[in-house]
This record gives sequence, C-alpha cells and structure tokens, in this order.
Amino acid sequence: MRNALFAAALLLTTTTAIAQPDTAAMRDEALRSDSLAWQLVEDLTTEVGPRLAGTEAEARARTWAAERLRGLGFSNVRIETFDMPVWVRGEERAEILAPFPQPLVLTALGNSGATPARGIEAEVVGYDSMEAFRAAPAAEVRGKIVFVSHNMQANQDGSGYGPFGAARRDGPTLASQRGAVGILVRSIGTDYHRNPHTGVQSFGEGARPIPAAALSIPDAEQMQRVLTRASARNTPVRIRLVLTPRQIGTRQSGNVIAEVPGSDPSAGTILIGGHLDSWDMGTGAIDNAAGVAITTAAAHRIMRAGQPRRTIRVVLFGAEEVGLFGGNEHFRRHREANDVVLVSESDFGADRVWRVAFNLAPGNQDLQRRVTAALAPLGIPVNRAPAGAGADLGGWARSGVAAIDLNQDGTRYFDYHHTPDDTLDKIDPAQLRQNVAAWTAMLSVVANAPERIEPVTPAQR
Amino acid sequence: MRNALFAAALLLTTTTAIAQPDTAAMRDEALRSDSLAWQLVEDLTTEVGPRLAGTEAEARARTWAAERLRGLGFSNVRIETFDMPVWVRGEERAEILAPFPQPLVLTALGNSGATPARGIEAEVVGYDSMEAFRAAPAAEVRGKIVFVSHNMQANQDGSGYGPFGAARRDGPTLASQRGAVGILVRSIGTDYHRNPHTGVQSFGEGARPIPAAALSIPDAEQMQRVLTRASARNTPVRIRLVLTPRQIGTRQSGNVIAEVPGSDPSAGTILIGGHLDSWDMGTGAIDNAAGVAITTAAAHRIMRAGQPRRTIRVVLFGAEEVGLFGGNEHFRRHREANDVVLVSESDFGADRVWRVAFNLAPGNQDLQRRVTAALAPLGIPVNRAPAGAGADLGGWARSGVAAIDLNQDGTRYFDYHHTPDDTLDKIDPAQLRQNVAAWTAMLSVVANAPERIEPVTPAQR
Repeated sequence: MRNALFAAALLLTTTTAIAQPDTAAMRDEALRSDSLAWQLVEDLTTEVGPRLAGTEAEARARTWAAERLRGLGFSNVRIETFDMPVWVRGEERAEILAPFPQPLVLTALGNSGATPARGIEAEVVGYDSMEAFRAAPAAEVRGKIVFVSHNMQANQDGSGYGPFGAARRDGPTLASQRGAVGILVRSIGTDYHRNPHTGVQSFGEGARPIPAAALSIPDAEQMQRVLTRASARNTPVRIRLVLTPRQIGTRQSGNVIAEVPGSDPSAGTILIGGHLDSWDMGTGAIDNAAGVAITTAAAHRIMRAGQPRRTIRVVLFGAEEVGLFGGNEHFRRHREANDVVLVSESDFGADRVWRVAFNLAPGNQDLQRRVTAALAPLGIPVNRAPAGAGADLGGWARSGVAAIDLNQDGTRYFDYHHTPDDTLDKIDPAQLRQNVAAWTAMLSVVANAPERIEPVTPAQR
Repeated sequence: MRNALFAAALLLTTTTAIAQPDTAAMRDEALRSDSLAWQLVEDLTTEVGPRLAGTEAEARARTWAAERLRGLGFSNVRIETFDMPVWVRGEERAEILAPFPQPLVLTALGNSGATPARGIEAEVVGYDSMEAFRAAPAAEVRGKIVFVSHNMQANQDGSGYGPFGAARRDGPTLASQRGAVGILVRSIGTDYHRNPHTGVQSFGEGARPIPAAALSIPDAEQMQRVLTRASARNTPVRIRLVLTPRQIGTRQSGNVIAEVPGSDPSAGTILIGGHLDSWDMGTGAIDNAAGVAITTAAAHRIMRAGQPRRTIRVVLFGAEEVGLFGGNEHFRRHREANDVVLVSESDFGADRVWRVAFNLAPGNQDLQRRVTAALAPLGIPVNRAPAGAGADLGGWARSGVAAIDLNQDGTRYFDYHHTPDDTLDKIDPAQLRQNVAAWTAMLSVVANAPERIEPVTPAQR
C-alpha cells in the first residue's frame, strides 16, 4: 500500500512537470459544437463521392485530403503512393427463370469472376449456412449455382460480422473448388432493403474465379421461399445470371499522411487514422469518411490547444476495402523507424463510442486509468477485451505497439455497410460530435502523458 | 324523444328479424389467428412476384387469383379482360459529369420518354419545389434538365402524397412545355434509401414526352448539395442521363371477380377489393398484395359464418398503378346493373386500420353507429372526413354509392411505395391480422344490416 501511494505521488510529480491541456474542456467543447468532422464528411462524400481503390476517384480523394489537411494547418502533409491490382464492377443482374419467373437484386463480390455477356443459366442449390454447405456432399453443386444463407443479427459490438461473413469470404472459394458455376450469398448485413452488400473475397489456392455475388436480404429470403416451394413440388429452381466485372491490372493508390509535431521526439508518435477509399456503390459516408473526419477533427483540436508532447500522425489509408493494401504498405514502409508508441483507428461508422478497449503495458495502468476517467463523462465504460486497433493499424498492434480502441456502436452499421445506402444521411451529427469528443479526450491524455508509453505483449485476436 | 325511441324500437325489431352473426367473435378470431391473408400475400409475392399491368406476369397473377378464389369456395369467379396501352422500363442510369463526377440512382417515371441509347448530356437547373419551378421564368430550363425537389414528410394519414406528388404528376408536363430535355424529381417518398420511387404520370396537352425520372432521396439531397456548391463556384452542374423505356402498344389486362352470394338479392351488393397489378421493381407486397389479401380473407370469414343477407363482391383490379384502367373498366361495365349499395377499398399498405371514415345517407346513422361500435374494440375511432373509397372504387362513391373507408396507418407507407423495397418483409403479420379483423367486423355488419343501405350525396374529394 505504501509503495502504491509512493508511486502515485511520484507520477503526480512527473505529470505536473509537463503542462497538461484542459482535457475535459476540450472534450466538452467538441461534444457541444464540433463542426469540422461533419464538414469533412459532407465535403468528401459530396465533392468526391464513391472512391474505389485504384480509380481516378480515389486519386481525387487524395488530392482533396492533402489540400484540406494543409489548409487546416497540419505539418508534413504528404501522399505516399503504391501500386495495386484493381477489380471493377460490370453489368450485374439475375432472374429466376423457373418455377416462378422474376428478377433478383444482387451485386458482385470483390474479385468475382465474370459470366459471358449473355450470362449463364443454371440450377440453384441452396444451403442455410456456410456450415451446411461445408458439410454437404461436394458433388452436389457441380455445374450448379450455389446459394448460401446465414442468420446474422445486428449487435452493438458488430460481433456477427466475423462468423457470418464466412459465407462471403470462404463461400466462393469452396464453391469453385467443388465445381459450381457460380455462387450467390445472402448479403452480409442486417437490414431489409433491396441494397445488396458487396465486400472483398479472394479465391484461394486451386480455385478458379467464378461469378460470385450477394443477393439483397429481401431477395435472399425470396430465394429461400422459392427453393422451399420448388422442392415441395419436386422441381428445380433455375436462374439466369449476368455478372461482368473485370480485373483491369495494376493501378496506383496511396496513403495521405499529416502530422501534429510533438515537442518531445523521444516520447514517440501516436499513430491514428481511417481509410480514404470506399466501395463503389455508396458515397462511403460511414465507411469511412467518418473515420477520416473523426480522427482529423480530434487531432486538429489537439493542435489548436498547443503543441502536444508527442507527435500525432494521422494516416488516411488508400485501398482498405479491397485488401488492406494501404495499411500493409504503411506498416512495411515505416515500422523500422520504430517511433510509434500507440495506435488507434476509427473504422466502424459514425455512431457513438460506447466503450473503450485497451492493450497497454502493465506499467501504463495509470495512463489507462486517466484515459478511462476522461471518457467516463461521455458514458463510456471499459471493454475488458483487449484492443487490437482495426484493419489498417492492426499490424502495429500485433507487432507489440500499445493500442486503444474507441469502440463505436455497431447496431446500425451492417444495415448500410458496403451498400449503395452508405450515404451522408446515415450520419447522426450528434453522435459524430460524440466521437470527436471521445477522440479528443483520449488523444489529449495519451499525446501529453508524461510517462513512457511502453511496448506490449500483442493481443491475441 | 319519443319518436327517436320508437324508431330505435322499430329498428331493433327489424334487426332481430334477420339472423345476425356474432360479429365480435368473428372479429376477435381474425385478430387472434387469421393466417389466410398472410398466406395470400406470401403466395402472390413469391410465386408471381412483380406484376406490371399488361405483362405476362400480371396475367399469371390473374390465373393465380382465380384459382385461389375458386379453391377458397367463392362463387361466380371470373376474369374480365380489357385492353390497355403498356409502357415498359428500359435501361436507366445517370451520372454527374461536372463539377463532382459520380453516379446517381434513379428510375423512370411511368410514361417517361426515352433518351438515345448513348444518353443525353445537359446542364441541370434545380428548384426546391414544384411551386418554385412554376414561378420561375419559362426560358430558364430550355435545353436543360430540370430537377424538382420537395419536402414531403411521413404522416399517419398519408396527406403529403397529394400536394408533394405534384412534382411527379405535373413536373414532366411543365418541363416539356418549357423546352427542357429531361426532368428529375426527388422521389415522392419519405425514406432515406437508394431506392427510387416510380409512379405514373401522363404528358398533358402540347407536351412532347421527355425523359422523366425520380432520384432516390439520398441522391436528390446529394443533387441539392452539388447544385448549391456549384452555384457558389459559379460553375454549371452537368449530367449524363440514359433512360430507354418504351411504349410497346396495346396489351391485355383484366379484373378478377368473385362473390359471396347473399340471401336477399333485393338488398344490394357490397363491392370491395384491392388491385392485383404492381409496379415492376418490387414484389408489390404492400401495394397491393395486402389489399387483395385483406379483402379476400375478410370476405372468406363472412362466407364461412353462413350466408350473408347481401352479396359481397370482391374485385381484384388490373392495371391500377398505370392509370386506374381496371377500376374504370369495372365501373363502366357494371354501373348500370345498379346493384351496388356500398363500396370499400383496401389500397394503402398493410399497417393497422387506425380510423374509419363514412359516407352514409342520413337515414343510415344507426348502421354507422353499429359499424363504429364493432370497430371500437380494435382501437379505431371515427375520421370525421367523409369516405370516398380509393382509386379503383372512387367512381362508385362519386356516383352516389355509400362508402366506408378503413383508413390504414400510412406512417411507413411512403418509405416503400413504388420502390424495389416493396417486398414481403415490410408486412407486419400482427397488423395484417388487425386489418382482417376490422374488415371482417365491418363486412359482417353491413352485409347483414336489416335496414336499406341508401344512396348518398357524393363526398366532395
């Protein structure tokens, strides 16, 4: 007990030695009146709109971002380009030919193979889940189009995406390996709108690319009803599928980097960010103009409050959606500088931060306590699962860099994720401000923390 | 006072003379356990799906309906066909070319003109409302594409559809008369999804058909932002529009008619129904498989309870969406039989009946009181505005036939109306049962009413 008190007293002394900004005031001002994050989301989604990785639209997004970051007063604003393979959507339509003729609404999954321009006609064989498809006799699907359903539900922590997303991630490869001529999956989503959810998948070893698409959820349920009724009548379900996406070869993407320089280079860098690219059907408001805007607006608030102890580096990643190219590139290129002491990422929409997860070294317990205290007035409790950053910064976390996750409420996220419906109107300005407030509070504490931010044992994700 | 008591006593005597079914028990059983309405909606939307007027799909719907009505035991089941002009959707896409290149989601309005296959490119001139468009200088739109917005909100009584629907109904004609090369309207709807709302319009006198489409509401708001920003930069907004619908000439549609024969032909017929056709993008679940199902299921309950005094005639109309062809045909063909004493229509979705409107003769006040009493346990109060039936039976009401409207809750209706999103999942089974319960109660009272149902002074709508 005496030792603990002594340590606390020592820390207090150290803390007092470095000027601390008024974190509570900064947080509350952001909550009350932040307008920068909304402006950034509105500008990016309106003036650029959809920005598929490797396209001219994504290049325009980089130009837009670099100009905005410079205009806001960030330092060392730069674009680091890289090359990547690009897949683009083509025509996409389908119809049930028998026994109940009618059109279906679907969209190709990333890296889908193509049908001939006139399409293909085949029988559909359906499975209620990826598990049922895996367990079925392999020969059952040869020459047919597979349909895989699932039962994903909306959860606050988005925990359905991992397990139920297997239909999208693994279904196409398995269908190809078993000789299917195509695959349709129930969209990996939780809405009931005729807006299918796309998303990346990659054909694995020995799997020739076949046409792979997601049915909107109403269409997936229609397909289930049609299969059930056809089966009862002992008649096959036949569909025509037209899907003409293309691999167009190597194109340029890039990461946009900006900094708030710290006063103490020896204290290390806080690395934060979101991704600039989006899928091609929506305007990428929640995925991920929001993350771009939240991290930029929070870092801007820290900058305006006076020079922080640590450098804050904001990276707006390219080509996340199609395979984490930007995140991987940034890690590969900059890990050896060995300056990053903490990572945090915003890539789960624009709804409020509902809890905070940490992966800090045992010696940084007090830092964790101070971040927790700074977030508590926003109603944010601690998530006892360890932080791991997200898709673009997970590499740093896995390599032993400390991480903090400001978990966003994911209840609505998979209603819009990767659909044409990911548009500005889905963002609640009040919840967006709450994100900026939480990020401002967290950054204020970690960027100015007087103690050393230590490396960690990587979280097992 | 003595006279009133005497009249009531007399009526009571008359009432007792005709066997009355247990209306309350029938109503409550429907509310608790009706499954027929759901089954009909599911069957029609699954086994037929979209059923645009004049197409082979609508013909399949007629065959389906006649078979089901016969199977349910209805009498005099027949199809009355008629010819009508048919317009079909073609390709439809648009993109902003400058200053912020991006795609737009839209759909052609009924009877839209076509662009060449390669599309047209033109400048957009925007108006916040139909009133602003009307008030603007006529020359302002020559050679341009007009965009007309509006501010429709969701209301329980659907009262926004009339005034704000003017953009769709009157916008294309005015744009054509003023020399515009096309028109885009903000979808006449209340949702925020990338599902545009189609709907019929007809070019008026002196108005050459021009391409006319509805932007989804997120796209309409994007267009407003783009126009505002472009205007601030003093630069025009240019778009490319591809819209290739066609008038394919005369095709056959038809009405499906079925009856529950009454015991007293002199007492007249109760005419009820909904429409069998739907728009082409959704499966027409709320518009109007629900109305077909509700009226059929309620009439079936009356039939099962024993022969009613009055004949109940259920008409499932063809070609409502594209111009009320079926309703007009039925009225033209059958008005002279002069047997219909009361009309009631179900064509406003599948959400609960929230109030009841009447247009009954002064001498039928007690009938009105008894219908009101039979509905009160469902929480349904009286709408003091007069009943006028709906689109397909309005002609009868306007000609002096008594009418009762079971007004449905329209709060959600214009979220889905005329969009791809009008699918089975939008129907709440409990609210659908409540509709059947309300219709069963109303029909039980009016079909068995011992008094004469009198003609009325038509309601002024």
